This record gives sequence, structure tokens and C-alpha cells, in this order.
Amino acid sequence: MSKPIRFKHKKKRYVLPEPGTTPGFIYIDGNSLKPKITLYSFSTEAIDVVQLTSLRDIANKTKDKDFSYWVEIKGLNSVELFNVFSEELKIHKLVLEDITRTYHRPKFEEYDGYNFAISRMLRLGEDSALENQQVSFIQTKNVLYTFQETYEDCLDAVRNRLKEGKGNIRLGGTGYLMYALMDMIVDAYFSVLNQWSEDMDELEDRLLSRPDKSVMYETQLVKRNLISMRRVVWPERDKMNDILRTDSDLISEQTKMFIKDAYDHCVQLMDMVESMKEIASSNIDMYLSIISNRMNEIMKVLTIISSIFIPLTFIAGIYGMNFSKQDPVTGKIMPNNMPELYQAHGYEYTLLVMAFIALVQIIFFWRKGWFK
Amino acid sequence: MSKPIRFKHKKKRYVLPEPGTTPGFIYIDGNSLKPKITLYSFSTEAIDVVQLTSLRDIANKTKDKDFSYWVEIKGLNSVELFNVFSEELKIHKLVLEDITRTYHRPKFEEYDGYNFAISRMLRLGEDSALENQQVSFIQTKNVLYTFQETYEDCLDAVRNRLKEGKGNIRLGGTGYLMYALMDMIVDAYFSVLNQWSEDMDELEDRLLSRPDKSVMYETQLVKRNLISMRRVVWPERDKMNDILRTDSDLISEQTKMFIKDAYDHCVQLMDMVESMKEIASSNIDMYLSIISNRMNEIMKVLTIISSIFIPLTFIAGIYGMNFSKQDPVTGKIMPNNMPELYQAHGYEYTLLVMAFIALVQIIFFWRKGWFK
Amino acid sequence: MSKPIRFKHKKKRYVLPEPGTTPGFIYIDGNSLKPKITLYSFSTEAIDVVQLTSLRDIANKTKDKDFSYWVEIKGLNSVELFNVFSEELKIHKLVLEDITRTYHRPKFEEYDGYNFAISRMLRLGEDSALENQQVSFIQTKNVLYTFQETYEDCLDAVRNRLKEGKGNIRLGGTGYLMYALMDMIVDAYFSVLNQWSEDMDELEDRLLSRPDKSVMYETQLVKRNLISMRRVVWPERDKMNDILRTDSDLISEQTKMFIKDAYDHCVQLMDMVESMKEIASSNIDMYLSIISNRMNEIMKVLTIISSIFIPLTFIAGIYGMNFSKQDPVTGKIMPNNMPELYQAHGYEYTLLVMAFIALVQIIFFWRKGWFK
Amino acid sequence: MSKPIRFKHKKKRYVLPEPGTTPGFIYIDGNSLKPKITLYSFSTEAIDVVQLTSLRDIANKTKDKDFSYWVEIKGLNSVELFNVFSEELKIHKLVLEDITRTYHRPKFEEYDGYNFAISRMLRLGEDSALENQQVSFIQTKNVLYTFQETYEDCLDAVRNRLKEGKGNIRLGGTGYLMYALMDMIVDAYFSVLNQWSEDMDELEDRLLSRPDKSVMYETQLVKRNLISMRRVVWPERDKMNDILRTDSDLISEQTKMFIKDAYDHCVQLMDMVESMKEIASSNIDMYLSIISNRMNEIMKVLTIISSIFIPLTFIAGIYGMNFSKQDPVTGKIMPNNMPELYQAHGYEYTLLVMAFIALVQIIFFWRKGWFK
Amino acid sequence: MSKPIRFKHKKKRYVLPEPGTTPGFIYIDGNSLKPKITLYSFSTEAIDVVQLTSLRDIANKTKDKDFSYWVEIKGLNSVELFNVFSEELKIHKLVLEDITRTYHRPKFEEYDGYNFAISRMLRLGEDSALENQQVSFIQTKNVLYTFQETYEDCLDAVRNRLKEGKGNIRLGGTGYLMYALMDMIVDAYFSVLNQWSEDMDELEDRLLSRPDKSVMYETQLVKRNLISMRRVVWPERDKMNDILRTDSDLISEQTKMFIKDAYDHCVQLMDMVESMKEIASSNIDMYLSIISNRMNEIMKVLTIISSIFIPLTFIAGIYGMNFSKQDPVTGKIMPNNMPELYQAHGYEYTLLVMAFIALVQIIFFWRKGWFK
Repeated sequence: MSKPIRFKHKKKRYVLPEPGTTPGFIYIDGNSLKPKITLYSFSTEAIDVVQLTSLRDIANKTKDKDFSYWVEIKGLNSVELFNVFSEELKIHKLVLEDITRTYHRPKFEEYDGYNFAISRMLRLGEDSALENQQVSFIQTKNVLYTFQETYEDCLDAVRNRLKEGKGNIRLGGTGYLMYALMDMIVDAYFSVLNQWSEDMDELEDRLLSRPDKSVMYETQLVKRNLISMRRVVWPERDKMNDILRTDSDLISEQTKMFIKDAYDHCVQLMDMVESMKEIASSNIDMYLSIISNRMNEIMKVLTIISSIFIPLTFIAGIYGMNFSKQDPVTGKIMPNNMPELYQAHGYEYTLLVMAFIALVQIIFFWRKGWFK
Repeated sequence: MSKPIRFKHKKKRYVLPEPGTTPGFIYIDGNSLKPKITLYSFSTEAIDVVQLTSLRDIANKTKDKDFSYWVEIKGLNSVELFNVFSEELKIHKLVLEDITRTYHRPKFEEYDGYNFAISRMLRLGEDSALENQQVSFIQTKNVLYTFQETYEDCLDAVRNRLKEGKGNIRLGGTGYLMYALMDMIVDAYFSVLNQWSEDMDELEDRLLSRPDKSVMYETQLVKRNLISMRRVVWPERDKMNDILRTDSDLISEQTKMFIKDAYDHCVQLMDMVESMKEIASSNIDMYLSIISNRMNEIMKVLTIISSIFIPLTFIAGIYGMNFSKQDPVTGKIMPNNMPELYQAHGYEYTLLVMAFIALVQIIFFWRKGWFK
Repeated sequence: MSKPIRFKHKKKRYVLPEPGTTPGFIYIDGNSLKPKITLYSFSTEAIDVVQLTSLRDIANKTKDKDFSYWVEIKGLNSVELFNVFSEELKIHKLVLEDITRTYHRPKFEEYDGYNFAISRMLRLGEDSALENQQVSFIQTKNVLYTFQETYEDCLDAVRNRLKEGKGNIRLGGTGYLMYALMDMIVDAYFSVLNQWSEDMDELEDRLLSRPDKSVMYETQLVKRNLISMRRVVWPERDKMNDILRTDSDLISEQTKMFIKDAYDHCVQLMDMVESMKEIASSNIDMYLSIISNRMNEIMKVLTIISSIFIPLTFIAGIYGMNFSKQDPVTGKIMPNNMPELYQAHGYEYTLLVMAFIALVQIIFFWRKGWFK
Repeated sequence: MSKPIRFKHKKKRYVLPEPGTTPGFIYIDGNSLKPKITLYSFSTEAIDVVQLTSLRDIANKTKDKDFSYWVEIKGLNSVELFNVFSEELKIHKLVLEDITRTYHRPKFEEYDGYNFAISRMLRLGEDSALENQQVSFIQTKNVLYTFQETYEDCLDAVRNRLKEGKGNIRLGGTGYLMYALMDMIVDAYFSVLNQWSEDMDELEDRLLSRPDKSVMYETQLVKRNLISMRRVVWPERDKMNDILRTDSDLISEQTKMFIKDAYDHCVQLMDMVESMKEIASSNIDMYLSIISNRMNEIMKVLTIISSIFIPLTFIAGIYGMNFSKQDPVTGKIMPNNMPELYQAHGYEYTLLVMAFIALVQIIFFWRKGWFK
Repeated sequence: MSKPIRFKHKKKRYVLPEPGTTPGFIYIDGNSLKPKITLYSFSTEAIDVVQLTSLRDIANKTKDKDFSYWVEIKGLNSVELFNVFSEELKIHKLVLEDITRTYHRPKFEEYDGYNFAISRMLRLGEDSALENQQVSFIQTKNVLYTFQETYEDCLDAVRNRLKEGKGNIRLGGTGYLMYALMDMIVDAYFSVLNQWSEDMDELEDRLLSRPDKSVMYETQLVKRNLISMRRVVWPERDKMNDILRTDSDLISEQTKMFIKDAYDHCVQLMDMVESMKEIASSNIDMYLSIISNRMNEIMKVLTIISSIFIPLTFIAGIYGMNFSKQDPVTGKIMPNNMPELYQAHGYEYTLLVMAFIALVQIIFFWRKGWFK
């Protein structure tokens, strides 16, 4: 019996604030990371990257109309940080609440003077556990604020393109930059799905060559991960659609063409997730039928051997009985007691009868197709 | 055999009035609680909390335009109470009927001069049974009436905020207060779901380490609870949507922003409920496959042992037969009867043959992979 | 083996007219009941109830503008009856066809000068079989015609309210009366569902205490009944919705508020039906898993007993062989033949070996957890 | 083992033209029937039925404005026929392609000057196989052309009504005639469903009285047929809906009232098909649970008998061993070897012990409820 | 035990560029085929086919207004090719990205001056593996560019029609040509489905005559292929619908009539795919029930033989015991020890008792119906 595989419980249990707090209450989880703030100031010609220690006076640092700004905030553990947003930047407190409670679905909302969006960043961590983090975006005319829970992410490629000035990335303003980051996050879903797809191929090979319980468990695990991903991809698609249909002048028509592309990717992802889920289910069904088949084979072996030998053993048992031809005490002779034992060829005839019975049974099972 | 787990039948069977009563008939269940009435009068600066014994003349007590009022009614067992609503306050009798028949889905309806809404308050009672109560709201310009069946609830946090004047709660009028109560009720759903989620993790651990019937029963129980919760969350979302789209001037635009937030929470809840249901189903499937696997193992043990020993026992049976070499009475010698018994090494050869047969079978089963 | 439960085939097979009859052909089933006609003439002050033998000249009897009229027709077996509708009252012949072919879904249709509606009356008859009858309504400005197949129904409460003048029933005209009857019919669905809900609780108790085949059969039966009810409730909801959205001046706005209430009841019913169906399915799954568990237990008993005793029996068989130490005829001594039999303590050692083997197996099964 | 039932493969494999033919290519299957053409000329007063050998000059034969015409074409094997439609009557070649490729879903399309519709005629042929043929309609102002693949059909009732002038059939022009034919075809679906419903009742009786493999196979067969019918009924409903919503002046408002009736019939059919499918599935589940139950019973018999007798046989085996009290050669006495055999009542005590063991086991099985 | 069938993993794993490349980045897979370019210049009277080695200056070659042009590009491995599209023809770089990443769903998009569309070409390759390639279309006023990954395709029939000038193909401009190619691709889906349909009939025959594991595996394989096809057909239908609803003047109304036909074909395909999936699922269920039935039969054989012979063997065991009538050492006589052995007819009576027991059991099993 192979030892049971443990599902990897890497679930992040969100530390919820006490129920009953005021709506819009900024809840800071004491165990979360301290913020690292980076300010990217860029125009088509130039780019400047500065680490900030505080957001105080950020409005002044981002007022040059020739530049666009990206304020990247990694780690949310700072009350003072959110006070700046609330007081200086006049961000709605429900928005700030959404940023700090990092279990929201992807969404896009327009506010007076800025847009707010949430993406979910998926990554396969060690042990192939699915890590699922929230990235929040506040986009104003010339500043994009991003918030993420951890210091590591999958966005370095965008940072490099920004620094090197490749493609549209410095031309499109904050709208295009936000798109580029979101697109990067969605692209990462494809890598995750590809990994799972390879896992499933490998599981399928094992299913057909040497199916055991672990195949079942791991297929269930992939299926469960697909359920999680579906919960992310569906609202992601809706989010992209909301951005497409917005009238906000913060999102240009050119950027919307790219958003349309990202929307198509989401639809593609949904297709893939649904198909993979169906295939996982069908593999589980197949596993169950393999188990049933195997049971049939086991039972056939038992039945063939038992059915052949039990009657023969019975016959042997008959002639192992001790009915006496002669009473040992009185010497009375009882000729009807087991006369076969005293025939010259009784033993040989008995063996022949046994062989015949076995043969009949073997033929019977053969014709039933049990030897195949 | 472990003893069967009893499903906890804490279902509240509603005492229905006789079919055929007039629509709008106010039905008072004689076993329900007598009403406790509390009047909260609050403005941004002040708050006053009074216990009332009757609602007579409530219109006069709530006529100060500078104040908003919350009339909290706990326990519905009073005909006189509803007469006040019907006669003094001119509330439609279908509304009053809905309040007294406490099995309605969440909904929001606009009437002439007031809004009517129903929420369902879910709580895990003792033994983890799901308690499901109706909270009804009648909201006029400056008075909010709430009705609930029991004295205990999950709304103390809102009462405290109201008394302490935290956040918007005293600024937003009856609309915001109604939202705050509804939001509190929806927040409580998250706690319930979190509890079930932990239960399911624990069940999953048991499923993989020591699966027995109770795992199956309890997973089914969680699944059933999820079905109940889904029946509440879907119409709750629709209700929030109805409030968002209403033109009623009793709900301000600012309040609607908060309602939008509550709407998002409902969508989030639906996501969680559906995922958990899928995971529960997949665990039940897994349990069934574990049962099948276990059956296979049991059968393998039986088949291996039977298949090895039954043929050997047959051989032993053969040489236990009493075919005689010599007739005890006549003394006739029959040399063909079981000559093996009279060979110098017959016994040893026989044991060798048996060992060989056992070995062949063990190899056969080994190669079939049955020892794994 | 308990004897199989018979499903109760109380299905009413509709006697269909020959295919190919003209559309609008009035088909009278010869086995149906002769009509009993009652005319209720009522105003807010007065009510008069008369039995009619024929509908001839009904237009004259119902022409007083101060009165509303309810013509109740129980039993449809009369060609002459339908001729009156067709010729005197100018009712469209497709409407009359729908009335006589009593297998239609609930629906609401507007015609020139009158409305036509169908409800389905559900009742639990003897043996808990579900009886499903059609009630048709033709509503004109001041006359409501109702048609039902049988003399018994669940509408007496409405008749009593009408006679006693309780509530709105005499004020609302034919529209409110039609609503009151429809609402009564929908209310009866709740009683039916309540009965099934109690049946299912009882089945669940049996499932967990003493599951046998009958639990399975009866749960399937409830599930099937729920399928039938769903086929009635969905179109009933659509019908209510059609009435809500109609512009017909035969349905007043006040009545529509009540219809909205009935609509909510239908949604509630649909919720309940779907949940109960899900619970029934989950109970059937549970039954199947109980069967599997039981099989496992049976197999464990067999395997434990067989596995312990078969090897021991084999050992006993070994020492039951008759290999001779001395040839009975020649007297030759063969010391290698079963020397164990001639050891002073051979028997005791053998018993000890057997006990040891049994112990090893018991420990093995114990550690596999098979004794739990 | 009963012999397997063969599914009736009466599937008509459509002989497809080579892929890559021009769209609109008229493909004539050489094995199909030669056309028989009948021209019905009718007005409210008169009707004239003529067999035609060719459609050439059909425009002239159908130009009398006082008459409506029905050109019925049975058998499609004639290139010349379609040339007339293409050249003389200016029918779009995609329409003609749809007519000749007889595997289309029901649909309704408006063209310039004519309407085109497809119905599917279902019939239970011999062996209860479902026959599924295409009937196509081209409706112009005063001529209705119908095309069907075979000479037999279910439309004689309509022909008779037309000849006898019953009902609206001669008044309503080509629109009503087309409706009458379509309605006749839909009516035939009800007969088919009724037949299946009776089959399912009979299968259910067999399922509960003597379930065997054939019940399973035949239920699956019915289910498969229902899947086929669903594929016809859904688009049929959509077709009716398209006709209802058309602005074409070839379909009068009066006719649309009848079409609405046919639409209701389609909805009714869909309801019935879905319910029957659900019931078929539930019967298959029930069959599987019956199989499992039966397996349990079989295993119980085996386990009870084996468990009782295997230990007893072991005891008998013990006392069948040949451990000697006295060495036959040396005469040495070994008093510890099987002293029980030489006790005065050893045999009786042994039998008692055996009976006691059997009794204990019987009680054990009894309390487990295995004898029920 | 038949050897496991391997699923054919012919999945094309797309070589994805590094995540994080600029959106619109043209990724050329180094292993793909070098482009072969063919230019078809055609008018209603003439056609000219030229092989090109480069697309440079293509604008000049396709400027004759009297002609329409088809530029067919097979193989995408050329950066220079896409530079022409990007620079000379001003095609949006997201379009070019979609062309080079050949895993997109079918879609239709309008751009300024041209339309872009994707189809997926399905073919059954060797070993019945499903090959799935992307065909992309760029349609301008008078030039149609098509892109495909491989040199082989299913479009020769269209090329031939074009060369021979059959049907509309030279009259309809680039819009009709694009339709003709798309229609050809959709037509090929029917061939694929037909092949699978035949496979499934054959599998069904095997299922009913000699079901083994391979039937299960191959049915699952077909089901999986159907899932893949469904992923293609659904968006294909949406694409056709998008073309139908476009206002683009590049698609004429006449062409739209043909597109409507192709749309109908897609709906037809979806119907077929869904039905076949349902039938495949139902066959898998049937296979599982056959396995269960077979298990029942195996167990019946085992149980009948064991149950009959085990008790008989026990009786034989009893009389094989060696309880002595006389102590061999002391000569004491013990008359109660197995007196049956010393009866004159003990052996015969014993055999009769055995026969009786066997008979009783046979009757018992017969009445349980186990011999059927």
C-alpha cells in the first residue's frame, strides 16, 4: 500500500479584520511586508528610477506634464501610506479597503479622476503549489500606482522594456503601462496552464501504464487547481470587457486595441481551462473503470482456481474418510463401506475422474473468455 | 462498524397559516417571541436610545427633521404592532405579510413613500447547524424599521458604531444605516464560509489519512449546507443589484457606492460557494475511489492466499486418501493404489512439488504487481 | 430479499384525438365528467350563487354593470357548452381547443376583449400519487369563466371568502378573483412540497439507520415527482411574469401588485424544488457509497476468516497424508516419510506453529485497520 | 448469460457529394426516388388535383389569382426538376442545395418573393427505429411547393381536409396550408413520444421485477432516441419563433395565431423530452444500484457459508492428522500425540465444539443483518 | 490481460516566445516552414498564377482594379515577409502577432481598410490523430492574403474552381473567395465528424459483442477529440455571426447570404458534436455497467461452486478424523468415537446426505435466478 499523498495546503487564509468594522476601514495585516516604493518617471526620451521611502508630497514629484509616472508599491504594511492616498490624493476609502483586503476578484471601476483595477497574479511556487496574489492599480491622468503583496513578481520583463524604451511602452502613457502589466500577468497564466498540461500528459501516461492511487490524487489536484484558475480567469475577462466599454478618457482608443487582444487571451484561457477540466474528469472516470477491470481480473483468478480445486479437494476428502470395511473390535465385515478403496485401480480411476472434472471446468472458463 | 452519524435536523419548519387565507393576511405564530422595540434617534452630533413598549404614536416620536430614526423590532408576536403599521403608517398589507412569514428570499421592493427589503441572517449555531433567520427592513425618508425573529443577532457592531458615531454611520441617513446592517449580515456569511472551509480542510486530511464513512457523511453535510447558502446568496446579489438600479430618492448616490461594494461581496461569496461545492463533490468522488481501491486490496489478499493454498491443500488431500495397497479382509495386494505413499522419499518429493507450485504462483502474482 | 416496491403508475394517459384533426377542433373525451355550472354574481354589498344547467343566454345573465360574475364550470363533457363559447361569446377556437385538451403548460394569452390563462392544480392523492389537473380561465371585463376537469378541487377557501366578502375579493373585479384562484393553486404547491420534504427527512433517517433498497426506490420516486413539479412551476412563473407585463386593461395595477407576490412565490418554489432535487441526488449517491462500504465489510469478514484458516487447514492436510514409514506389504522401513508424525511432541509443535501463523495474520489485518 | 441485444443501426448515412463542390451545387443522390408531382389547385369553393410529369411551365398553371396552389413533390431524383426552380422560378441556389441535402435542421428563411422552410418528419418505423426525413417548403404568394424524400408520409389527414374543405384549410391561402402541414408533422412527434413513454413504463416494470442487461440496453436506446428528438425539437421551436416574428406579408396575422399554438406545442415537446431523458437517466442509475445490491447478496451467501464451514473443516482437518501415539516400527509410545483421539467422548465433544462455533457465527451474521 | 493502448499524443506544443515580449512582437519559430508564395490574379475572364519569392513590391503587382488577387502564403518562417506587411501594407502588428502565434481561436476583426480572420483547419492525420492548424486571412478591397503553417491543406478544390472559373468564385471578389475558403475548411469538419461517427458505430458494436478495455479507451479518445472540435466549432460560429453583422463594405450582401449558409453549417456541426459527446458518455456508462454485470457473473460462479462443495468437504473431513474406537496401546474400547464408521451402510448414507445437501443448495440458487 503506497503511502497517501498529501494535498498541498498552501492556501493563504486571509487574516480578516473583526466583522463589524466600518466599511472602508483600512485594515493592515501586521504580518505583511513593509512597503518598498519605486518611482519611475518616463517620457519617450528619458527614464528615471528612484526609490522612495515615503509617499508624502508625491503630488509634487509627479506634476511634470511631459512625464508619465509609475509608482510601484511592494508590500502593504503601512498605515501612513494609505493615509497619503486617502488625504492627499483623495482616493475613495472603499478603494483603499479593496487594496488592503487582498482576496478580491479582478475588477475595473471608474472613479472621479482615476480608475481602479485589480488583477490576480498566479504563479506556480515550489511543490507546484499555486500562489495567488492581488495586484491593484490606481490610474490617474499621468500617474499609475500599483500595489502588490510581495517583493517577487513576474513583471520584470515590463520593467526592462520600460527602461530600454522598447515598443510602445513609453509612448502610451499610464493607460498603456497598466495594460502592459495586466497583459504580463495574463501571459503568466499561460505558463501555469502549460505546466499543468504537461503534468496531465505525464499523469495520463502513468494512468495507462501503471495506474495507482497517486494518479487519482494528482489528477484531482490538477482539477482543483483548474477550478481555482477558472475563478480568476472569468472575472479577468469581465474586467477586460469593462475596460473596453469604458468612456474614461484615461484609456485611449489605441490602448483599447491592445486590451481587446488581452480580452481574446482571456477567452482562450477559459477555453483551455474548461477543456482541461473535462479531460481531467474523463481521466478520473477512466481510472475508476481501470480499478473495476482490475477487480474483475482479481476475481477471475480467484474464481478459476477455487472452482477447479474445491471440487477436487472434495473428492479427495471423500476417499480420505475412514469408513471401515471391517470393525476393528468385532471384526465384522462391512463390504459396502468404501469398496472403491479396495479396487485394484481405484486410485488411478479417481485421478482420471479428477482430471476430467478439471478439464471440463477449464473448457467452461475458456469459452467464457476468462483466460483472456 | 462505526455507528452512523445523524444529520442534524435543525430545520425550522415554518408554521404555515391555513391555505386559503386572504392574501395580505397577517399571520402571527403563537410560539414566536414577543416584540422588544428600541428607538434610536440620531443626528451627526447626538444619539438617543429608548426602549418602547408600543408603537402607537410612533409618527410623532419620529417627526424631528434634524434626526434620523431607527426603530428596531425584535420578535414579531404582536397583532397590535402590525395594526400600527397597517393603519397609522399605511404600509401595504402584502409587505406586512412578507414580514410575518419569515421564509422569504432576499428582495428589495419600492413602494409609495418607502422601500421594503428582506435579508437573511445566517449563523452557525451549536453543533454547527446553520441557523437561517429573516431580517426585514422598511425604510422611509427618516425612519428605518427593522424586524427580526429572535433577540440575538450579529448586528451589535453596527449598534456600537452608531452609538460611538464612527465612520459615516450617523451621516448617511436611513439609507446608509440600512446598508450598514445588510453589509454586516453579508459579512457574517464570510465567517460561516470560513468555518466550512476549515471543516473541509480537516475532512480532506481525514479523507487522505483515515477515510471512513463519517468523512463521507460530513462532506455531504457541508455540501448540503452550501446548497442552502447558495439559495440565500444568489437572491441577495439580485437584491443588491435592484437597490443599485433603483431611482428611489431614499437611497443616495453615495450610499450606492457602498452598495456596489456589497454587491461585489455577494459575487465573491457565490464564487466561493460554487468552488467549495465543486471541491466537496470531488472529495466525495475521491472517497468512492478510495473505497474501490480498498476493495481491490482486500480481494488481492484473499485471492493470493486462497490461490496459493487451495491447490496445495488439494495435493495434501490426495495423499490423505485411503486407497489400500492391500485388502484388509482378503489380503489381496493392489500395487497400483497410491504407490507414492510407499516410496522412500515420497513425502519429501511431495513437499518439494508443493513448494514449487507456491513459488510459481508467487512469481505470477508478483509480476501482476499485486504485492505492491 | 425484500420484495420490490412498485412505482405508482397513476399517470393520466391523455386520450388524444386522432392526429390530423383540424386545428381548433373541440375534442370531447367521452369518459370525462358532465359539466356542473355555478354562477356567482357579486358586488361589494351582495352575492348571489345560482346553479345553471346550460350556458345558453349567459350574456344576458351577466350584463349588470354593477356586478362581477364568476361562471364556474366543473367537468368538460358537453359539446353544447363549447358551442356557446364559440358562437355566443366569440371565443377563439384555439382557446377552446386548449381548454379541452387538458395537458397544457401554464400560460397567459391576451385576446381581443378577453384574457385566457391556464393553471395546473397539483394534489397528493391517495398513495401519495401526484394528481395534476388543468384549470383554465377566460376573463372578460366583468365575467370570469373557469374550467376544471373534476368536481373536487382546492379552491373552497376562495369560494368561502367570496361568500363572506372577506378582504379584497369582492372589490377587485374579475382580475383580482382570477388572481385569488391562481394564488390558491400555487399555495397548494407549497403543501405538496412540504409533504415531500417530510418524506425526504424520513427517508434520510432510514438511509442513515437502516438503508435498504426501498430507500433508494422511494428517493427516486420523490426525485421523479420533483421533476414533474418543476415542469409545472417554471411555466407558472413565466405566466405570472406575462401577466405582470401585460398592457391589458382587464388587469388593474392593484391586482398586479398581488401578482408580483404570486410571482415571488413561484420563484421561491423553484428554489425549493431545485434544492430538494439536489438533496435527493446526494442521498442517492450516499446510498451507493453505503452499499460499497457494506460490500467492503462483507469482503473483509470473508477474507479474514479465509486467510487465517486456509493455510492452517493446509498444514492439517499435510499431516493427514498417509505416507508410510513402513511398507505394509514388504515391511520395508522408510524413515524419511513424515518423521514428524513419530516425534514425541510433534502434535504440540504443530499446534503451536498453527497458532503462530494465525497470530501473525491477525496482527497483519489489525494493522491494516480491518477490524475497525 | 442472455445474448446481447443489438442496437438497431438504421442510421441513414447521407451520401455526401465530394467536398469542394461549388456552394449552391445541386447534388442529386442517384439512389433516391424519382419525383412524383401532384398539383392541388383550390379555392374556397373548388379543388382540383392533377398529377404532373414535369414542372416545366408551372408558372402558367398556377397563375389564376382566385386559386391557391399546392405543388407536392415526392422524391428528389431529377436534375431537370431543380433546373425549373432555378431558372423559371428564380429560387436561390442555396435554397435548392438545402432541399437536396436532406440533413438540415428545421429553419425558416425569407427570400425576395418567397419563404423557405424545413421541417423534419419523425416516424417510428419497423423495429421501433426512428426514421427522420426532411420536408422542405417554398411558399410564394399563391403557390406552396413541398419536397419530401419518400412517397409515404404522415400528411394524409391534411390532404383529406383539403379535399373535403374542412376548417380553414382552403381559406387561409398558402401560409395556412404550410402551417397545417408543419403542425401535422409536429403532432406526429407526440405519437412518437407517447410510444417511447409506454416503452419506458414497460422497461421500468421490468427494472423493478426482473432487471437484466436488456433493460439497461433498451433504456439507453430510448435515451439515445430522445437525444435525437431533442436535436429536432429545439430548432423546430426556433423556426416557429422565426415565423412568428417575420414581417413577411406571405404569413397573415390569423395564421400567426395558429403558429403560436404550434410554438406552444414545441415547448411542450421539449419539456416532455427533457423530463423523459431525466427519468431514463435515473432508471439507469437505479439499474446500477440494483446490480450493486445483487452483488452484495451474492457475496453475503458466499461469506456466510465460507465463514461457517472453513473453520469447522479446519478442526476436522486437525483430527484427521496422523500423529502417532505409538511408533509403528519401534513401538515407542508418545502419549502427547493427539490424546483427544483416544478419549472416550472425544468425538462427541469435538462435534459440540463445532456446533458452538457455527452458532456463534450465525448469531454474528444475524446481528449484522445479513440474513435479511 | 491485453496490453494498454497508448493515447496518441500528437499534440502540437506551441513554442511560445519568452513571456514578457512586447505585445505585437512578431515571433518566428525557427523550426517552421519557409514560405512558399503564390499570387493568383483573376478576373471573370482570366486567371494568372505566379510563384513569388518575396512580397516586396506586392502593392504594385496587385494594383490593377479590374483584377482581384489572392496571395497565398504557406509557411511562416520569414521575418522579412512580415516586415513587408508591417511596413508596406501597414497591417497592425497585433494582427501579425496573431498570424505567427498559431494557437488562436477562430475570429473576425475589422481594421481600417482591411479585415482579419482566423480559421482552424482540422484533418485526421495518420493514426487518426486530429491535426489542427491555423489559417489566417487578411482581406483588403482587392487582395486576399492567406497564411497557413504547412504546405498541405484541404483547399485544392477551391483552387481548381478558381482556375476553372466555376460558380461565383471569380465574380465575388475577395469577400467571396475568403468565404469559399472558410466554407471549404468547415466542410472538412463534416468529414472528420463522419469518420468519428463511423468509429463510434464500430466501437458500439464491439461494446455489445466483446467489450474490453480498449473499447473504453478508444471511446474516451473519441470523446476527447470531440471536446477539441467543440473548442473550434463554437468560436467558428461566432466568427460567422460577426461577419454577418459587420458593416464592412469589403463583405457584400450577396456574400453574406453564403456566410449565413456557413453559419447554419456551424450550428449543425455543434449539434452533431454535442449529440456524439452525449452518446460517447452513454457508451462509457454502458461499459461500466457491463463490467459490473460481468463481475456479478464471476462472483456467482465462485459462490455457487464454493457454497456447494465447502459444506460437503466439511462432512468428508468429519469422517476423515481419526478418533479411535480402540486405544492402540491400551486396547481400551471407546464405542462413542465415530460409530458411524462402523455401520454396515455408513458410507452410503453419508453420500446420500451429501447429495441431498447439494440438491438443496442447487434449488436455492436456482430459485434466486443465479443460473440464468
